[in-house]
Amino acid sequence: MSAPIRVTVWGENRHEQLEPEVAARYPDGMHGAVAQGIEAHLGAGVRVRTATLDDPEHGLTEEVLRDTDVLTWWGHAAHGEVSDEVVERVHRHVLDGMGLIVLHSGHWSKIFMKLMGTTCTLRWRAEHDRELVWTIDPTHPIAQGVPHPMIIEEDEMYGEFFDVPAPDETVFLSTFSGGEVFRSGITYRRGFGKIFYFRPGDQEYPTYFHDGVRKVISNAVGWAVTLRPERTTPTLLRYETEDFYRGQGYGGALNDDARAAAAEAGL
Amino acid sequence: MSAPIRVTVWGENRHEQLEPEVAARYPDGMHGAVAQGIEAHLGAGVRVRTATLDDPEHGLTEEVLRDTDVLTWWGHAAHGEVSDEVVERVHRHVLDGMGLIVLHSGHWSKIFMKLMGTTCTLRWRAEHDRELVWTIDPTHPIAQGVPHPMIIEEDEMYGEFFDVPAPDETVFLSTFSGGEVFRSGITYRRGFGKIFYFRPGDQEYPTYFHDGVRKVISNAVGWAVTLRPERTTPTLLRYETEDFYRGQGYGGALNDDARAAAAEAGL
Amino acid sequence: MSAPIRVTVWGENRHEQLEPEVAARYPDGMHGAVAQGIEAHLGAGVRVRTATLDDPEHGLTEEVLRDTDVLTWWGHAAHGEVSDEVVERVHRHVLDGMGLIVLHSGHWSKIFMKLMGTTCTLRWRAEHDRELVWTIDPTHPIAQGVPHPMIIEEDEMYGEFFDVPAPDETVFLSTFSGGEVFRSGITYRRGFGKIFYFRPGDQEYPTYFHDGVRKVISNAVGWAVTLRPERTTPTLLRYETEDFYRGQGYGGALNDDARAAAAEAGL
Amino acid sequence: MSAPIRVTVWGENRHEQLEPEVAARYPDGMHGAVAQGIEAHLGAGVRVRTATLDDPEHGLTEEVLRDTDVLTWWGHAAHGEVSDEVVERVHRHVLDGMGLIVLHSGHWSKIFMKLMGTTCTLRWRAEHDRELVWTIDPTHPIAQGVPHPMIIEEDEMYGEFFDVPAPDETVFLSTFSGGEVFRSGITYRRGFGKIFYFRPGDQEYPTYFHDGVRKVISNAVGWAVTLRPERTTPTLLRYETEDFYRGQGYGGALNDDARAAAAEAGL
Repeated sequence: MSAPIRVTVWGENRHEQLEPEVAARYPDGMHGAVAQGIEAHLGAGVRVRTATLDDPEHGLTEEVLRDTDVLTWWGHAAHGEVSDEVVERVHRHVLDGMGLIVLHSGHWSKIFMKLMGTTCTLRWRAEHDRELVWTIDPTHPIAQGVPHPMIIEEDEMYGEFFDVPAPDETVFLSTFSGGEVFRSGITYRRGFGKIFYFRPGDQEYPTYFHDGVRKVISNAVGWAVTLRPERTTPTLLRYETEDFYRGQGYGGALNDDARAAAAEAGL
Repeated sequence: MSAPIRVTVWGENRHEQLEPEVAARYPDGMHGAVAQGIEAHLGAGVRVRTATLDDPEHGLTEEVLRDTDVLTWWGHAAHGEVSDEVVERVHRHVLDGMGLIVLHSGHWSKIFMKLMGTTCTLRWRAEHDRELVWTIDPTHPIAQGVPHPMIIEEDEMYGEFFDVPAPDETVFLSTFSGGEVFRSGITYRRGFGKIFYFRPGDQEYPTYFHDGVRKVISNAVGWAVTLRPERTTPTLLRYETEDFYRGQGYGGALNDDARAAAAEAGL
Repeated sequence: MSAPIRVTVWGENRHEQLEPEVAARYPDGMHGAVAQGIEAHLGAGVRVRTATLDDPEHGLTEEVLRDTDVLTWWGHAAHGEVSDEVVERVHRHVLDGMGLIVLHSGHWSKIFMKLMGTTCTLRWRAEHDRELVWTIDPTHPIAQGVPHPMIIEEDEMYGEFFDVPAPDETVFLSTFSGGEVFRSGITYRRGFGKIFYFRPGDQEYPTYFHDGVRKVISNAVGWAVTLRPERTTPTLLRYETEDFYRGQGYGGALNDDARAAAAEAGL
Repeated sequence: MSAPIRVTVWGENRHEQLEPEVAARYPDGMHGAVAQGIEAHLGAGVRVRTATLDDPEHGLTEEVLRDTDVLTWWGHAAHGEVSDEVVERVHRHVLDGMGLIVLHSGHWSKIFMKLMGTTCTLRWRAEHDRELVWTIDPTHPIAQGVPHPMIIEEDEMYGEFFDVPAPDETVFLSTFSGGEVFRSGITYRRGFGKIFYFRPGDQEYPTYFHDGVRKVISNAVGWAVTLRPERTTPTLLRYETEDFYRGQGYGGALNDDARAAAAEAGL
């Protein structure tokens, strides 16, 4: 428990460059606000860095990811500009055991969609709804110290049907002034990695300065750290009868004769 | 309940071409045996066709998929030869509501991996293990009329850890002579589609002539048919306050000013 | 699919006797309104009877339960008056495979609490909130043909935290004018029985005349019917090695010597 | 994280009194062996006491339970002798947030059955089967440091169907020499309490001296401790519109007029 959690806060950082009012709202970027919130809550327990879309390799090199226990992801206007190579790399690290926290409009990021396998669509409205975040799993680590309900005075509305797999755990449900509902805090395990999706947080509102939102993200950072001693990729191996621990590399689907026949047949 | 269920049985059909003993075991192909099993159990309740890898577009054109209620998938030696375009097409049809039954080595097919988001790896051995298939969800439609346990005298071994998302429902668990265990009958909902993965069935054994195996696949066909009146894609739409039913097309993440700024900045 | 589903609609029928405005609202009792709603939707597919608290054995004799495929339960003011013997009987029938639909204030009935193992408490207010019922499991049989959202103009508010086990499936979430949220349509499997809890429906509102509410209850009746060929009680049995199908009666926890020693020791 | 976890290990302690070979195997009782295993793994991180059936109030007074973070439960031959009053007390403490670990034949204890709501029956054989315990949730805290598989050379067999609610999490599956399978490590949340059922451990085998078994129980002790700041009972309260935090006591199901009418009618 001694080494600080290594957190990388990824931000798309486009709205901040293109919209003066967003830049004014988030002078250090939304990623800056998220990073500061985590530091404010976890202090010496974390070592936080940020990375953005316009950094080389989006700031997510193999070296950075290997040095990251938990990655947080906010994107919106430029999901399509995230390179497939980086998405593959992040995906592998998640399956190997890196924690991932996907925020708000990150529901439509390539990495989240790849992990979910669905469209990740929802209903939506940007009209100053009040959001109430209700806890329905009160013993969950991510819910500790969070008001019930947590009130966010103004935020974008996301509503059901949210096209994601049935969550492993539903920690929070949000309602909006207009009467909509959303599964706003949900967990998934994929490979050896733990994933938390958290809904609040739009560029048009100061949501990432909200102390409760910061508390949830900080709790999620603690929760998402793998407990396994090392990061490894789940691998298909052959195990002989009664040899439960020494798997052997997979030799392929065809035996020698079939391989020869395939070559001959041009298959 | 009057119209027959339209089933497409997809088979890779490579082992049958390349390995004489497989061709002898499955003279009509493994897809043929699966198709016959479904017809034997469901009779006039189904209309079954088959399609294979070497057919144009692998036999899975837009027209065929639109005419398919439930698709079954067996592949092994040539997962990599399935075209990405066909995989995208099948994926969309599943999310729109087509049922999908993935068999045995189909765990490593592109379509299953895309729907799961994980490596779908497992431990494995081809050594004539006896497989016992135990029901742990006795009220599930797919388990009706299936012996408890169902005995398969010889089959390949698949063991845990099976790197898939936690299933929505675990219907069957298999054990093997060697002591391994596997979640062998599991369900997932993705988009508007229902998915069943079923483990038994290897080219080296006559598993698809086993009546219990055929019963399970037939039950799964009935279960996987969508109940929704039409097939549609989950879509992100904007809904105005108090207008719960008429969503509007999504206009994109940036407003006009921001789009202009992005164009100017070359972003 | 030929024999009609045998439904018993159980109503406490106390508010109707004690409160003239409830009697005026539900001239045939709330149980009458629920029964009529099921008949209106399922017609010849069901055979519905009603039973109430003041009937001998609350109308739930062994004979009646044996003749019931699905039991619906509404109680509120007199949960404590339901005899423990009848609760035990209903409990056994549910575990044996009888379907159970628990409505609204039935969350605090003895039978629901016994099946859940928790306090089944919630937050509450009777103040004419509008309820919106949202579908989050759109492929579920119980959700078919139900508007998204379903609007109930006035009803009592129930809010989270609802102290029940994590549901097997969450079909509906409700929101209320005041901003509260509730898991309002949830399923559980217990023993060989299927259970659906559905929130709407208070004596102070005409909720059981609402066609959508009636549609949901009717869908749930169809869903809750067991598919197993007979009703049996899960039983602990001894199975010898390699004899997978013939279990033997359990002889007790102590061997003969230990039993003698216990008798001698007065234990 | 500084205060040690307060663990109470409850043992029925009847086999130890009645069967000399059990007394020889477990000279400090099975509860003694369990307690020693927890201490061996968690050291200064725990403060362990034991309690048994023959203690006054079975050693589980209000005072003891209030001073207990996690209770472990082993019973077999004398489930029926556990007083209903103590069961009610333990049940309330679990719902309030006390952790509970139920071991082996505790599946048929009154407290486990009350929390589950089902028969908790299974198939069974006492014939020196080898048990292999496989991890299917490798990121779960309870699975850390546990061999995959964990081998128990000899133990009683428990097989499916295990009549319990679908677990919140299935951490371990066990297989037996005879080919049976069992969900052997499963979690449930009930009220504010966390529950872990763990299968291994019979009086006829030295299972509770097995280091892996002790590791699992110790991990479960750490997992089951509530994270909530205080222990409280979920309670039904009325909340006025816009007053989200101050619930008021429940006044009962009938208004004054209806109560008067009920009194007059003798209801």
